[in-house]
Amino acid sequence: MTIKALTFDVFGTVVDWRGSLIQELTPWFASRAPGVDVVSLVDDWRGAYVPSMDRVRRGELPWTGLDTLHRQSLEQLLAAAGAPAFGEEDLVWLTRAWWRLTPWSDSVPGLQRLKKKFTISPLSNGSVALLTALAKRAGLPWDLILCSELFRHYKRDPEVYLGAAALLQLDPAEIMMVAAHNDDLLAAQKLGFATAFIGRPTEYGPRQTKDFGPEGSYTHVAADLVDLAHRLGC
Amino acid sequence: MTIKALTFDVFGTVVDWRGSLIQELTPWFASRAPGVDVVSLVDDWRGAYVPSMDRVRRGELPWTGLDTLHRQSLEQLLAAAGAPAFGEEDLVWLTRAWWRLTPWSDSVPGLQRLKKKFTISPLSNGSVALLTALAKRAGLPWDLILCSELFRHYKRDPEVYLGAAALLQLDPAEIMMVAAHNDDLLAAQKLGFATAFIGRPTEYGPRQTKDFGPEGSYTHVAADLVDLAHRLGC
Repeated sequence: MTIKALTFDVFGTVVDWRGSLIQELTPWFASRAPGVDVVSLVDDWRGAYVPSMDRVRRGELPWTGLDTLHRQSLEQLLAAAGAPAFGEEDLVWLTRAWWRLTPWSDSVPGLQRLKKKFTISPLSNGSVALLTALAKRAGLPWDLILCSELFRHYKRDPEVYLGAAALLQLDPAEIMMVAAHNDDLLAAQKLGFATAFIGRPTEYGPRQTKDFGPEGSYTHVAADLVDLAHRLGC
Repeated sequence: MTIKALTFDVFGTVVDWRGSLIQELTPWFASRAPGVDVVSLVDDWRGAYVPSMDRVRRGELPWTGLDTLHRQSLEQLLAAAGAPAFGEEDLVWLTRAWWRLTPWSDSVPGLQRLKKKFTISPLSNGSVALLTALAKRAGLPWDLILCSELFRHYKRDPEVYLGAAALLQLDPAEIMMVAAHNDDLLAAQKLGFATAFIGRPTEYGPRQTKDFGPEGSYTHVAADLVDLAHRLGC
């Protein structure tokens, strides 16, 4: 079947969450709470991401949006780091650092090229508001915003991938999932999606333990999104 | 409150459904079924729109997407017009004429200006796939696609407006509903939205019986989307 749409993982695949958060939060904490180790805070914050979603996926929590999960884990980590009690405005600003992440340098030019030939959308665990704000700020030229919040399921639940296909009115085989994470691609592939692995070997910094390369048989393996555009004839 | 997002009615407000359908379908029927009066078919097709959605809104039908409703009313109208039995491919092409509508001449330049200052989204009874295809073809620069399908309710049910506010993580007072239809604006206004009336007095052609002007006290009344951009300081 002809590919008509590309759906993208966002955190790590399109934006450099770790570099962005460290860069934005370092000067902020330096002036407000210099005792906080920002690099560890950022790595631990991301470390809380999968366990917090898994509580929703296992049904231990009712549907809870990612912004709320981010806020809860932030408050726990700040308390554990001995940070002073910040006010509501500061906590919202900190949590919304995830709304202000910076794309990898190839993401905007790659997406601009891919958009000419395909419908392009995030398919992320981020919220609609987060993904919209992030795209507007960074210039990510999405045709629409698809994400877990619309289906009240987190990846890698099948409802997310199949929900996207249903809204696009496409067969899974007409959609290519693009991600830097093998488990995301394997979950999509199992449901009939085409797949493209993007190498982002520095995503997790020194803590990176996996996803250094493709661990499955994917439709495409690309160095970055400009390379993917080239491979797809854009 | 400061307005942060604008949500737009699409059929009639942003695109000229009647002119587009008549222009595209006239040559098609002339060669395939010259006995069909295309202008009446188009007007009757749109005439079936509100009654078909009302059956869903009243609970007589389970949730049914607009593409399915369009297809059902098309088949009834073709049969009534004595048209020959078309094949599946033709029926899909005809139904998807709603995916290929042309914007009013002010829509793209107006939205491009409005997008610089506000998050802009459709808030339409069209499907995600329809609105995405339409935007891509016509160059409507939406930041995201919001529509009835996401909430499984048709306008003017409050779930549509409140659902959009929830996904945008905004208070209704931070959103302006933009429409050429008084009932849409009044429904949004009742829920706390700001409102902008756009005059589209030729939308329904000779059958137009209402919406020649504002029938409520709206935040703005504009001649078109470029005029609205001017009024909002874009």
